[in-house]
Amino acid sequence: MAETMRAIVKAAPGRGAEMREVPVPEPAAGEALVRVQATSICGTDHHIWDWNPWSEQRLGPRLPQTMGHEFCGVVEELGHGTRGVAVGDYVSAETHIVCHTCPACRRNQYEVCLNTSILGVDRDGSFAEYIAVPAENLWPNPPDLPRDVASAQEPLGNAVHTAMAESLAGKRVLITGMGPIGAMSVGVARALGAAEVYVSEPNSYRLELGRKMGADVMINPAETPLAERIAELTGDGVDAVLEMSGHPQAIRDAVSSVIPGGHIAQLGLPPDTLEFDLNELIFKGIRFYGIVGRRLWETWDAMSRLLSGGRLDITPVLTHTFTLDEWAEGMELMDAGLCGKVVLTVE
Amino acid sequence: MAETMRAIVKAAPGRGAEMREVPVPEPAAGEALVRVQATSICGTDHHIWDWNPWSEQRLGPRLPQTMGHEFCGVVEELGHGTRGVAVGDYVSAETHIVCHTCPACRRNQYEVCLNTSILGVDRDGSFAEYIAVPAENLWPNPPDLPRDVASAQEPLGNAVHTAMAESLAGKRVLITGMGPIGAMSVGVARALGAAEVYVSEPNSYRLELGRKMGADVMINPAETPLAERIAELTGDGVDAVLEMSGHPQAIRDAVSSVIPGGHIAQLGLPPDTLEFDLNELIFKGIRFYGIVGRRLWETWDAMSRLLSGGRLDITPVLTHTFTLDEWAEGMELMDAGLCGKVVLTVE
Amino acid sequence: MAETMRAIVKAAPGRGAEMREVPVPEPAAGEALVRVQATSICGTDHHIWDWNPWSEQRLGPRLPQTMGHEFCGVVEELGHGTRGVAVGDYVSAETHIVCHTCPACRRNQYEVCLNTSILGVDRDGSFAEYIAVPAENLWPNPPDLPRDVASAQEPLGNAVHTAMAESLAGKRVLITGMGPIGAMSVGVARALGAAEVYVSEPNSYRLELGRKMGADVMINPAETPLAERIAELTGDGVDAVLEMSGHPQAIRDAVSSVIPGGHIAQLGLPPDTLEFDLNELIFKGIRFYGIVGRRLWETWDAMSRLLSGGRLDITPVLTHTFTLDEWAEGMELMDAGLCGKVVLTVE
Amino acid sequence: MAETMRAIVKAAPGRGAEMREVPVPEPAAGEALVRVQATSICGTDHHIWDWNPWSEQRLGPRLPQTMGHEFCGVVEELGHGTRGVAVGDYVSAETHIVCHTCPACRRNQYEVCLNTSILGVDRDGSFAEYIAVPAENLWPNPPDLPRDVASAQEPLGNAVHTAMAESLAGKRVLITGMGPIGAMSVGVARALGAAEVYVSEPNSYRLELGRKMGADVMINPAETPLAERIAELTGDGVDAVLEMSGHPQAIRDAVSSVIPGGHIAQLGLPPDTLEFDLNELIFKGIRFYGIVGRRLWETWDAMSRLLSGGRLDITPVLTHTFTLDEWAEGMELMDAGLCGKVVLTVE
Repeated sequence: MAETMRAIVKAAPGRGAEMREVPVPEPAAGEALVRVQATSICGTDHHIWDWNPWSEQRLGPRLPQTMGHEFCGVVEELGHGTRGVAVGDYVSAETHIVCHTCPACRRNQYEVCLNTSILGVDRDGSFAEYIAVPAENLWPNPPDLPRDVASAQEPLGNAVHTAMAESLAGKRVLITGMGPIGAMSVGVARALGAAEVYVSEPNSYRLELGRKMGADVMINPAETPLAERIAELTGDGVDAVLEMSGHPQAIRDAVSSVIPGGHIAQLGLPPDTLEFDLNELIFKGIRFYGIVGRRLWETWDAMSRLLSGGRLDITPVLTHTFTLDEWAEGMELMDAGLCGKVVLTVE
Repeated sequence: MAETMRAIVKAAPGRGAEMREVPVPEPAAGEALVRVQATSICGTDHHIWDWNPWSEQRLGPRLPQTMGHEFCGVVEELGHGTRGVAVGDYVSAETHIVCHTCPACRRNQYEVCLNTSILGVDRDGSFAEYIAVPAENLWPNPPDLPRDVASAQEPLGNAVHTAMAESLAGKRVLITGMGPIGAMSVGVARALGAAEVYVSEPNSYRLELGRKMGADVMINPAETPLAERIAELTGDGVDAVLEMSGHPQAIRDAVSSVIPGGHIAQLGLPPDTLEFDLNELIFKGIRFYGIVGRRLWETWDAMSRLLSGGRLDITPVLTHTFTLDEWAEGMELMDAGLCGKVVLTVE
Repeated sequence: MAETMRAIVKAAPGRGAEMREVPVPEPAAGEALVRVQATSICGTDHHIWDWNPWSEQRLGPRLPQTMGHEFCGVVEELGHGTRGVAVGDYVSAETHIVCHTCPACRRNQYEVCLNTSILGVDRDGSFAEYIAVPAENLWPNPPDLPRDVASAQEPLGNAVHTAMAESLAGKRVLITGMGPIGAMSVGVARALGAAEVYVSEPNSYRLELGRKMGADVMINPAETPLAERIAELTGDGVDAVLEMSGHPQAIRDAVSSVIPGGHIAQLGLPPDTLEFDLNELIFKGIRFYGIVGRRLWETWDAMSRLLSGGRLDITPVLTHTFTLDEWAEGMELMDAGLCGKVVLTVE
Repeated sequence: MAETMRAIVKAAPGRGAEMREVPVPEPAAGEALVRVQATSICGTDHHIWDWNPWSEQRLGPRLPQTMGHEFCGVVEELGHGTRGVAVGDYVSAETHIVCHTCPACRRNQYEVCLNTSILGVDRDGSFAEYIAVPAENLWPNPPDLPRDVASAQEPLGNAVHTAMAESLAGKRVLITGMGPIGAMSVGVARALGAAEVYVSEPNSYRLELGRKMGADVMINPAETPLAERIAELTGDGVDAVLEMSGHPQAIRDAVSSVIPGGHIAQLGLPPDTLEFDLNELIFKGIRFYGIVGRRLWETWDAMSRLLSGGRLDITPVLTHTFTLDEWAEGMELMDAGLCGKVVLTVE
């Protein structure tokens, strides 16, 4: 095996990143080395590339570091004593490496592990020819799962986790925000029994992604006040909201649009603290769920079966494919908001 | 309005029933008179026609009585002080009339009301040109809902209730028994997120109904031992079983086929007491749910939205349509086991 | 029976109320006339007395109106066709009169009925010798339940509803705000299995009520920053928070004090919109429940059994008893914050 | 440290066991060696001593083997790479060693791990001066927890798991079978909010244990038919049953005694297959839970906090204490049914 490889490296503070030739990582005990076949770009990767304040604070001390965390590939080599996977396995990865010993892990709430380490954020990532990952984080894929879909399972898992906060069976569901995760969640909500899916998004390219994923009603909140439109369409409101945008007005609209006794699953992260009318939420008896990461392994179980059972097709969201060398084009496209999920193929 | 009407009447003990001209019922206070447009035949109706021991015990003292309870129609007249529906409304009916005052009703567990009175069992039913029903039991249908589908919502509600015992999101589900409710539950399970649906049924006509409703795998337990086949196909078992047959071996196979920590929703009624290995159920940590009726009104809410949202199509199960006058042909067909749901149209 | 009675009437806008001789109400169809034995003062009554903006908006057009809604008494007379209670029954009342026909009621979520009418707010109340109430709102008390306890079941029901948002079994629970409902919820949380109960309250009189109700740890947040203190005491946080104060800082402390993956049940109403860090709630995967009213009738069932089974004693919170004539003393005491629940006895 | 130790060894098939001097075990990688301070006798140990068919089948091929699995003690030595515990820690142990890799473990349903290995059943146990245990199975005890209580946490965990199948908050609960786990579950049910606790047990010594643990009503089913008595006392039935006996009649009585819409948590193991009227369970819409082991680590969390918070006192069930040398007296006492939990102290 080669000793060096191509990798997209965040080398220094400030906007940008660069392709470098770096050493192929060596898998530690319990880890596997995976030859990356496809790796997709997350909003987080874009933030790191763009070097927003969060990136500076979290990654500043760690540079240079290989970017990326959504990927699929083939196990190439095992570290000392690594069990549970075999060379040749076709895998994707849970990107949150958990500690198994904190109180949250002991309660099986791994998604809020107090010591989470994230691929591509807290250690070298997947925008490279190879990545070393703890074997327990690898998820076995069926051989016929397309590589772009396999790579996008990590963000899809966010959508599945959000959609599974409560049962959506037979419900009217509003999904606010048609970024890639929001758009994928349209398909997830449908697959999980949502009877009517309303979506809202000011960017018309993205709103169209919602339609392609099966939304019944598309609403541009820049044109029509969202809560008013929902009231017109439903009378009493929607039974559930999946809030995927983090936009303060969308969050307020979520509270106004949901029926009394309904629920809101909140994955979107607001940019800042929020002016919020808690009284409305209280008087309506709303259940409000903060959602982060994916549940290990319930989320992956459900997601994997929905994909392989043909119940869920996320390909409309996978709008662009580039080679690893063309990575910068993907970043620019995300900058312009004219894409769904961008996938990089690695040969 | 006419003073008499045609009705299929269980007139005397023993097999059979007869069409008679009987007075049009007068709606009491709080009731509505519904002009029946379609009424479908339930296994219970067939039991009453056939006069099995249960029928004799429950209906013996009440004869003569008009049969039938699954129907749709148009509200024709209101009793004194009846509110909540209007003349001309297109409706179906919840067939369990509940008391609202027993402890179960006070807990909102109306499906197990201690004083339930059932249409066509404890009072005159719907195999007739008109039926009087408490207005609170009527469910408003969208105008474009086909009459045969509208009539079959009551048994479909059993399927929905069973399927909603726990979330089926992303799960592998076995459904045992492809009578009309079992077959409809295939579509329901798919609509509610089941990732893989296995069905079992010894009658090949009915097994085919399961396939038409979207089952992924069809198993004839007379040819292949069910639990063995499920083990071969899944490795560890299915995540959930909807037991719709009441057959003792199917119930035992349900316990053997479900994964440790999985659940069984039991709608099928065994013909008698059962020899049961509770140890297997305990050691596997199974959650076992007895299911009866429909939840008021969660089941109807979910069902109605799944139908009108186009998520669920039960027409493959609605295999035969006759006129009310031809009702006996329907009974004979059910005797032979060569039908799904039989619907009688009423002009 | 007398034709007139004494009643505390909100006669005109502005602070205050007055005792008047008014006609004894006549129970309408479905209603019962209850001879009031004890009636307790709610914070809402105090707001109406004080005539805050909410009172002005909600009650302004309705004056004059008899105040009060927490009470117990004996059924004296039945309206036309009233069933389910009998003359002589010893009863308390659910104060929310619900419509049974709105979508929330049809889902059995009566606590958020869209057409709720509240005793003493939307119609004449219980600060009087008699009150007319829909019979379905009456709850039968065991004969030996003390009158002050029986009267306080309505606010106790808020505490029970909040405490039952999720199971507290074996959990560490923080309760913020030791007003009467907060203090009662200490006893409720203990009765329902909370293993450790922490309480916070700046008013030392009220903090002492928490201690008397069985709190394990009392915290004055004016002296010690609450979230810091909880971190010191628990290490990782409390498993659940019952937020009963509505104070913005208490709500923020609730989010900071709960463990990742824990829950907050929010009964306290903030005085205004709130500056809120939703990111913390999301990253911690918190389940946040808006709580209003009481669940019909699960809350009353549980409450009633806890009281009669001797599992719960709220008498430490029932700090003052006056006669109806002395009602103004109760209001003044509440003004000063030097009381728990004030009960008025009516002969 | 000594090289050999005293241990109660099941040396050969047939009734009995013997104290032997055996080598002190060496902790493997990831294991800890615990110096046993107290070890209590489980019904399973009694079965092994008595050599019932289950014992023969499960342990036959493994003899000789040290018996016992309930214990507490102090960590004395660590195997290679063992983390998470330290020499000197005062610990108890979860006795189910799970694989972490089977589908059940991946769903966090460790209590039904497909590859469970049990201390004292599948490997050497705790009736000895030392035991080697995987460190991840050790639970840290507070220093002031009495040794007999600490040892009995494993069976107490069965009671807690059973009682937590659903919330018991404000419920009427019937517990059938007052063996040690049944009797402990009386205290657990009370601590977790049960408003009324009914217990049944034909053995008067054991029935008295139920009373000492706080049962409100004691029923001897040999004297009064249980279901009839419950109907007399409650009218409509109990809200929940914890079935701890495995006796076929008790299981049938559980179904008859629970309200429609109630639940049964079944820990007791019937001696054989059972003649069962599933129709009653179905028509009553009962939720029936098979319970095995303890949930990792929710059960331990809740149990540990209930004990240390002073909410739960199980000492009335800890009726007899012997030294390890006197172990045979404990077995004889269990044979006679004249004891609660028997604890052996080890110096």
